[in-house]
Amino acid sequence: MPHAPSDALSLRHQAIRRSLASLSLDALVVTSLPNITYLTNFTGSSAIVVLTANRIHFITDFRYITVVGDAQATPSACPGLELVTVDGSYDGSLATLLQSMPAARVGFEAAHLTVARLDWLNRTLNVGNAAPALVATEGMVEGARVRKDAYELNTLRAAATILTSVIPGAIAEVRRGRTERDIALAIDTRLRQAGFEKTAFDTIVAGGPNGALPHAHPGERTISENDLVVLDFGGVYDSYCVDLTRTVSVGRADDRAREVYAAVRAAHDLAIKSVRPGQSRFDVDAAARDELTRRGFGEAFGHGTGHGLGIEVHEAPRVVRRRPEVDGGDESLVAGMVFTIEPGVYLPGWGGVRIEDDVAVTERGVELLTKATTELVEI
Amino acid sequence: MPHAPSDALSLRHQAIRRSLASLSLDALVVTSLPNITYLTNFTGSSAIVVLTANRIHFITDFRYITVVGDAQATPSACPGLELVTVDGSYDGSLATLLQSMPAARVGFEAAHLTVARLDWLNRTLNVGNAAPALVATEGMVEGARVRKDAYELNTLRAAATILTSVIPGAIAEVRRGRTERDIALAIDTRLRQAGFEKTAFDTIVAGGPNGALPHAHPGERTISENDLVVLDFGGVYDSYCVDLTRTVSVGRADDRAREVYAAVRAAHDLAIKSVRPGQSRFDVDAAARDELTRRGFGEAFGHGTGHGLGIEVHEAPRVVRRRPEVDGGDESLVAGMVFTIEPGVYLPGWGGVRIEDDVAVTERGVELLTKATTELVEI
Repeated sequence: MPHAPSDALSLRHQAIRRSLASLSLDALVVTSLPNITYLTNFTGSSAIVVLTANRIHFITDFRYITVVGDAQATPSACPGLELVTVDGSYDGSLATLLQSMPAARVGFEAAHLTVARLDWLNRTLNVGNAAPALVATEGMVEGARVRKDAYELNTLRAAATILTSVIPGAIAEVRRGRTERDIALAIDTRLRQAGFEKTAFDTIVAGGPNGALPHAHPGERTISENDLVVLDFGGVYDSYCVDLTRTVSVGRADDRAREVYAAVRAAHDLAIKSVRPGQSRFDVDAAARDELTRRGFGEAFGHGTGHGLGIEVHEAPRVVRRRPEVDGGDESLVAGMVFTIEPGVYLPGWGGVRIEDDVAVTERGVELLTKATTELVEI
Repeated sequence: MPHAPSDALSLRHQAIRRSLASLSLDALVVTSLPNITYLTNFTGSSAIVVLTANRIHFITDFRYITVVGDAQATPSACPGLELVTVDGSYDGSLATLLQSMPAARVGFEAAHLTVARLDWLNRTLNVGNAAPALVATEGMVEGARVRKDAYELNTLRAAATILTSVIPGAIAEVRRGRTERDIALAIDTRLRQAGFEKTAFDTIVAGGPNGALPHAHPGERTISENDLVVLDFGGVYDSYCVDLTRTVSVGRADDRAREVYAAVRAAHDLAIKSVRPGQSRFDVDAAARDELTRRGFGEAFGHGTGHGLGIEVHEAPRVVRRRPEVDGGDESLVAGMVFTIEPGVYLPGWGGVRIEDDVAVTERGVELLTKATTELVEI
């Protein structure tokens, strides 16, 4: 459970209320759990929030009532919180609450509410008179989350420092004859021992040809001489996610491995250097991609350069190729954004190299959150 | 990645195709990842399946192309699979594919597609002429998944056997002076070492008063004399989830602890004994609940008696109280269903007891998948 202070939560609520007012909405039904965490500090598995001009109606079930009540007696209490205990189904409790707001215009999160749930709500509400109107909204809370506040930046800094501290130990787990699977387990244990609540995603340990699969599952393949091994791991600290990749060489790297590694490292460095407020996220991607293309590896870099980090391990901003037909969203970086920079080269049958760090956009430029060498380590 | 043989996948496809035909649908767009796993063995993080009368159009991105291609050369190949590589966005690729089916009636999963995605698809498809009609469906694949096939039952049996083997080691980790957090980490490591790909959910270690929170997060509280400690853990094996709870006493349990434990154990045993084909899932819940009520703990049992297990750790059937206004779904148990039996008693300030096992409904009765003593262990 994060511990954003009540003041920080209050500022977040105000930002959403301004957005609601600008759309002439009286309330917002929040069904996305990461958005609920952001607005209330809650981290359980089930809740619905209805944010109004002066209340946070918090619908949850008996499993979480005690936890939520206890949190209200701390400096991280959620301002304006009014607890609603589910009696029956969540959406039933939501409908009952909304029926107490006749004639209201109530936004819902179109990117998170399913077609089935909206249909059920509309059918249920329309049984009564003067039912509130449900209005689709998009990205209202996500739009606030993209720019981290001071509490979030401090949390992400602390998380990145812990993640950086795990690197030497993670690399030490890579030994000839050991399976990828065993190495992944050892890294996960180190992440937890270092202070993470849990891993942020399934750890990747991909040796030799498996390195060519960007999302390889660690398997029974054993590490052997001359492998390049991609290690991609992350942790959740106080509900915030960080994410890091290093690629190491087992034994002395040959010329080809050095060439690929140097290309990825140059792309990584150029992309980080290009980060500043006002810069286009597409141009940060281009900084990495153009360098790889110049070195003959453009085709071997099939994913985006980075993704936002926060309560989710993949969130806005997406640092990807400029393709207006696919992603025409806001382009400019602003201070407070936090994301990964992770170019890679994947050569089927040969293997792969990826180097990943986490950065924050500052008022003047960029802050590297994960601070560790990117020199090629040979073990 | 599960390895359901091609024949098993083919039978699953046929079942969905029969459902489609009965609704006069030409195709089904499957966006739920667990449903995609069930139909294709795929376990990556992004894909869309369009199932037609003779094809499984499989839309995924470059990260997974190699994995999917390789799997097609094994005995677990997905019959009729036609690979579509995402160029741009997933939904863009889906729209392009659907545009090649003019005038078709295409089902989508209303419980999994968001309002925003459906709106975008409808807008995009309606630009052309003779666009396919998108029709809401519910539970088409889930309806097939609820009754496990032979491959799934064998996998769940194997998973439950591994989980059972972890119990003694998990209990051995509970030591006076140790934090819940450290015990949880040790149990997670044992789960992975025993052969699970990962944990099926965040392991619960809840000692003393924390046991009264059914979904407690393991924290910094240390285990001390006279604690009851709830240990709830599970693993994912070959993509299938199993789940188990034992409650142990640190030192000799006092009379109150024995009384509560005996009540939960009796409820657990009666519920399992009541499982058979044709039985109502609500009556299985009642078997546990009535016994707890008879012993004065009915109010202290706030959750359902069990949940289905399979590709998801919570799936159908829900073994819960009969409440037609909340859950009026199919009631009768059928052979092949697999679910947990996990009654509990939660007394705020005092603590809690939960005992959980996994069962399968057989042609004649019930098969206990997790086979271990439920006698109270005092450590």
